[in-house]
Formats: sequence, structure tokens, C-alpha cells
Amino acid sequence: MKTLIKDAAVVRPDGTTAQASIAVDGTRIAAVGAVPEGFAADEIIDGKDMLAVPGFVNAHTHASMTLLRSYADDMELMEWLNNHIWPVEAKMVSDDIYWGAALAAVEMIKSGTTTFADMYGPFMERVADVVAQSGMRGVLSRGIIGVAPDGEKKIEENVTLYKDYHGAADGRITVMFGPHAPYTCPPDFLKKVARAAQQLGAEVHIHMNETRAEIAQIEKQYGKRPFAYVEETGLFESGTLAAHCVHLDDEEIAIMKKHHIRVAHNPGSNMKLASGTAPVPRLREEGICVALGTDGASSNNNLDMLQEIQLAALLHKVTSYDPLAVPALEALKMGTEYGAEAVGLKDVGRLEAGAKADITLVSMKGAAWCPRHNEVSLLVYSGSAADVDTVLCDGKILMRHRALQTLDEEKILFEASRCAARLTR
Amino acid sequence: MKTLIKDAAVVRPDGTTAQASIAVDGTRIAAVGAVPEGFAADEIIDGKDMLAVPGFVNAHTHASMTLLRSYADDMELMEWLNNHIWPVEAKMVSDDIYWGAALAAVEMIKSGTTTFADMYGPFMERVADVVAQSGMRGVLSRGIIGVAPDGEKKIEENVTLYKDYHGAADGRITVMFGPHAPYTCPPDFLKKVARAAQQLGAEVHIHMNETRAEIAQIEKQYGKRPFAYVEETGLFESGTLAAHCVHLDDEEIAIMKKHHIRVAHNPGSNMKLASGTAPVPRLREEGICVALGTDGASSNNNLDMLQEIQLAALLHKVTSYDPLAVPALEALKMGTEYGAEAVGLKDVGRLEAGAKADITLVSMKGAAWCPRHNEVSLLVYSGSAADVDTVLCDGKILMRHRALQTLDEEKILFEASRCAARLTR
Repeated sequence: MKTLIKDAAVVRPDGTTAQASIAVDGTRIAAVGAVPEGFAADEIIDGKDMLAVPGFVNAHTHASMTLLRSYADDMELMEWLNNHIWPVEAKMVSDDIYWGAALAAVEMIKSGTTTFADMYGPFMERVADVVAQSGMRGVLSRGIIGVAPDGEKKIEENVTLYKDYHGAADGRITVMFGPHAPYTCPPDFLKKVARAAQQLGAEVHIHMNETRAEIAQIEKQYGKRPFAYVEETGLFESGTLAAHCVHLDDEEIAIMKKHHIRVAHNPGSNMKLASGTAPVPRLREEGICVALGTDGASSNNNLDMLQEIQLAALLHKVTSYDPLAVPALEALKMGTEYGAEAVGLKDVGRLEAGAKADITLVSMKGAAWCPRHNEVSLLVYSGSAADVDTVLCDGKILMRHRALQTLDEEKILFEASRCAARLTR
Repeated sequence: MKTLIKDAAVVRPDGTTAQASIAVDGTRIAAVGAVPEGFAADEIIDGKDMLAVPGFVNAHTHASMTLLRSYADDMELMEWLNNHIWPVEAKMVSDDIYWGAALAAVEMIKSGTTTFADMYGPFMERVADVVAQSGMRGVLSRGIIGVAPDGEKKIEENVTLYKDYHGAADGRITVMFGPHAPYTCPPDFLKKVARAAQQLGAEVHIHMNETRAEIAQIEKQYGKRPFAYVEETGLFESGTLAAHCVHLDDEEIAIMKKHHIRVAHNPGSNMKLASGTAPVPRLREEGICVALGTDGASSNNNLDMLQEIQLAALLHKVTSYDPLAVPALEALKMGTEYGAEAVGLKDVGRLEAGAKADITLVSMKGAAWCPRHNEVSLLVYSGSAADVDTVLCDGKILMRHRALQTLDEEKILFEASRCAARLTR
């Protein structure tokens, strides 16, 4: 299958925007620029008034939590978790995981996201089904809480998930291990997770240093901060995607550099839950890879990566009093190229020959895009996810002129609403 | 003209949402609830899957600056003003003001805004034309810089604007005086503005305490902080809408309370320009009216009030470490009811019998609105301005199913682009 995106405004890896065509051959970009001689496209997409950017990478989410969107907002974290989120999650059955993730996929594709890193469970195989059916990329991990009585079983589920799905769906599914967080996993348990992951050569996706309270708890319990605590268990040895990383000291940043830990920064969730502001400009200066995630829809409350890109660009300016803190292009890269790096994908997140054809086309026809002095500025500071027009992933068209090509939107919204009603009644 | 909005989810002034119909008779809401007996609607709007909220009030903007959207971003404030914004503004002619404001009106109506408070000039009569033609409400002021050689002339222009337009367009246009800021207006000049405004019974719209640097400058020059400085000129005596108010001390908050000063908080602009975070939770505790504005499109870069509502809800949570700092309903009220109060409009900003029929209908059909546990949470934390479906102002339909009814969108975008290209070449 050959697809030609004709004459779009293409954001190149160096940040410049050029009027160019993108030739897609199979799963990869064959050329960006002039149409290659003899390239016979099966499908032509008109790029007029379209901005082409890499598909967004949501580096940290809990997809099936869409079912709890707007169920419990504006409350203290522990009240939220103990009295609202956890009791409902305990009731979730396999179909809830499926329809919740399917709803997430609808929302993500419609807002230009092509890859998501998911930590949840049980029934992560149902999220894998959604990834396979939707045509997206999924980096899946079984969320493992060590303090729960079934901790060992969860490690086993993650092992099974890895064996059954790592590399599945033409390589669009990859699997990581998902130990939930230092404060929910004792040291011996983390060692077991580390061993299980390393035996398979799997990487790790973990929540780190989200709130001040959890850090104080770890310090009190173990006499050290979370990064030192986890480092000693060996968990960081096989490659780590660390979500949040809001509160860090110098020693922890040194540990992150030593183990090449990649960060999934979640500005929307950190703002809504009042967790704090991650030191993103500092992390960038230190050469640490910083990606963006939405977190779950019950703490955001949407899965709109462009909004996270916008928040990342705005939040760090105001908290550092530096209008150059996170420039527009850097924020966009956090949501695309750095996102792909953070979740462990090669050849994803850049629009250039040889890269995987994960492409989001954004319509620039609306009033918020007028006049067009600078397209990247317009996308980051003025555009909206609703401007996303067409989405390709792995060379396949997932949405065309806002119509989903792989998923039945109406049925999914109906079934997800039904699941949510049952869970919360 | 009688219009019936049938069976929508209506957000009432007390924050509850009820399935109800809204009967509009002439410029006002006749009833919210059951359809009044014998109400013969000329026009019926189906409210199924629609959330009805008051039209958004943009309490601080510079509409014609849309022409500079994306022209100069990611730079220091003084570099931005001196080398980019001011040189272009100096070239603006009457038609630029008109097409820039028309572009703003297109964008505002399409994102659910029915009222805007504008400070700009010269040629504010052309902004008045846009208000008259668009069917929106405009609270207009001539931006007056006292340190410029033509300061007196600008006061005269504001007097003329008031005399010609206050109460015009069936009362949809009101006029305030627009002394730019303490740091651009010396004391004797502010006294002249105060006298001119008070002779006409006009209120004042002014930038206050936006950056730390301008406060330091006033303190150095006059030995007092800006609110004390302005208070002594008498400018606060006739009613004041103060934009920004980012950095305040206790004495200044006392002055604000004494003069019933209303605040236009601009979270997007304050974040993008790295000005700082206004003490909104404190101001609310003190009983001060806090509204929301987008500021100009060159420092935002859109005129999306729902985004400001979202930012207001998120920013103050994270900076205060309090997840209850600005709850969803409070943020929505800042963008509607409190906005109307701040810009001096009575009977606007509430959906109830007797109020002006300024109504925004938001479609809840998208994935980001599923499931629907709480509509106000969904609007504030998950919805997008692109979900705005239909907009009424003063009883007239300005947009229906996203089609503008009063303005020629295509022509306006074309002409605005042409103006912007001429100004920046």
C-alpha cells in the first residue's frame, strides 16, 4: 500500500516547516519533499492547509480509566483514591477494560495520538486487542502493586503479557513491566519484578516521585529517597520509563542520568491533582529525555496530547519566570520524538525518509490559525486537537477527515457508557 | 422573535445541571424549565446532547491583535514589545483594526464567547462596527498611553468613543476609559483621565501589576506600589476593571476591596509571558470579583475562553498545592457570571428567567464527554471550544451548528490574512 500526502506544511525534525509531500510505502515514510519518480500512490491525501507532524506519543496513561472520567473531581487525592476510584476499579471485569480502552483509542486517534504507553490491569490482553484492532501502537504494562495480596500473581500476568504480546500486531505492541511505585512495592518485591523483567529483556514503566507525601513516606520507611531506594533493588538496570518525577533532588537526577531513565511528564494531571511542577527545564539541561503523558482520564480529564504539549510550554514559563523555558518546538518534540524515545520505539516520532509512517495532519483552516506567521507556534499556542483531520499509524490511515477508519465510534461510546453506568451505580 | 431551546442539560446559577428547556423571548430568557404555556416559538433548537451555559465573557483582550498571532513568540517581554509588536502596531490603519477585530469576533463566537472587553486603538469605532455587525456584546475602551506625545488626543478619542457608542447597538456596546497602566501614565495624566471618565459617568479598564519589573519601576519612581499610586489620582472612584493583578500585597488587596475593583485574570497570557501567578484563591476569599480574559492573541495565542477556564481551574491547584483551589464550577463562573459583573453588565451571565439570552450550547457527543458522570466537570476538565455548537447573544442566534449567522467567516479570514501580510512584510 502506497499513500501520498500531497503538498502539506511538514514539520521537519530540525523544527523548520516546509511545503512538501510525504510518500508512504508500506509502514514507512519513503520520502519527504518532492514525490519520488515513479511513485504510484494507491491513495492520495490532499495536504492543502494541513500541517503534518509526527503522531503524538502519550507516554503515560491508564486507558481504561476513561470509564471514570468526571466521576470524582475536585477532591483530596486520598479521598479520591480510597472512596471513589479504587472501589470502582475493584468491580471492573474484562469487558470494562476492553470498552474503556476502546473509548480511549477513539479519543486518542481523534486527537492525533498514534502511540500510548499504558499501565493498568487486570485483563491487559483486552487492551492489546484494542491496540491490534485500532491500528495504534501500544506499549503495555501490567500495573503491579506489591503490597496487595496478589502481587506475585500480577508479576506472572506481566510475564504472560510479555510472552504473548511483545512484538505482536506487526510489532505495534510492545510490553514493559509495570511495578506501580516505590510506595506500593517493598524492596524484595521490586527485586522480583526486576529479575522477571531482566530475564525477558523487558523494560520497566513505573510511577516515581509524584507527590511530596509519598517521598516523605519512603524516606521515613527506608531512610532514603525513592530513586536511591529503587536503584538498590536493581530495577533500573533494564531501561526505565518513569512517570511524573515531580519532586527531585540533585542525587536523584544523578541516578536518572546514570541509568538513562526517561521521564513521562504529566502536566495536566500534576496540575489537577495539585502534585507540583516537575523541574522540566532542569531535566532538559541535564540531557534527560522528557516525554509527555496525559495520565488517566480520571485525573486530567481527557487524553488530549496537544493540550499536554500546550501545558508543558506554558507551565514551565510561569513557574520559572522564564518566557523561553520550554519553547514551542521543544514542547512539540516532547509530545512526539522524545515521546517515542521514552517509550522505547525506534524510527518513530520524526517525519523523514526511513521513519515509521506515524503522521498526524492538522487542519489550519480555522480562525485560530489565522494569520499564519509561524505554524509550530500556531499548533502549540493556538491550535486545538479538534483541528486534527487525518491520522496515519504504521502507514495505515486510522482517521480520514475526522472519520475513524478502524473503530466503530458510535458503538464504542455506547458500550463504554453502559460499562460506566454499571460500575458506578 | 421567540426561540425555544428544547431539552438541553442546563447549568443553573447554583451549579446544578437540569434537563430543561430554555424559552427566549426577544432579548431575554422567558423561562428555564418546562416550556411556558402558549409559548409559540419561531425557531426551535434541539438541545439533545447539548450542555447550555451562559455565553462566555472575555473580560480582557485586545481584539485586533489577532493580526499578530504567532508573529513573535518565545522571547523576552521587552524584546517582544520593542522589536516586534510596537513597530507593527505603529503601521496599523483603520482597516487593520476592523479586520483584526472581525477575525477575533469569528474566533470568539466559534468558541462560545458572547461578550468581550476590548482595550485598543486608534480607530476603536471600527471595533464598534464589528460588535454591531456580529451581534456580540463589546465593552470598548481606547487604550491611552500617557507617556506618548499624543496622550491628550487619546483621552479625547475615548471621550468621543463614549459619546458616540456607549449604549449603541441596542445597548450591546458599552464604553469604558482605557488608561493603559500606571507605568505608562504619569499622575497628572491619570488625574485627567479620571476627570474625563467621571464627567461622563464612565468606568475604567486598566492593566495593573502584571509584572514584577513594572511594580519595581513604580516603587522606584513614586515610592509606593501601583495601587496606592493610582488610588491617589482618583482614578478608582468611578468603577474599575483591573487586568492581570498578578503581584499584590495586603495593602493593595485592601485598596481593591475598598473601591470594589474587579479583576480580569489572564492565566494563559500570564503563563506564556512568564509574568507570574495571580493570587486567585486569596482574591476569592477576600470577596473580590475575579473574571477571566484571554489578553491579546499575540500573547496567548488564541481567544478561547474555555481554555482560560480550564487553565484557571488547573494553575491555582498546582501552585497552591490545593486540589480544591479553584473548583470546576467556580472556574466556569469566572468565565461567565463573574465576567459579566466584572465588565459592568447587569442581567448577563446566568441562565434564568429575566436574564439576557446570552447562551452557549456545547455538544456533548464527542469521546471526551463519555461517560457523563458530571457535565460541569466534563466541560471544564475535558471539553474543548470546538465542541461549541450554537451561540445566542441578546436573543439572536450568532452561530448554529457551527455555521456563523452574522459574519462572513471566509471573507474575514481572507482579509485579515491580507492585512497581516502587509503589516509584517
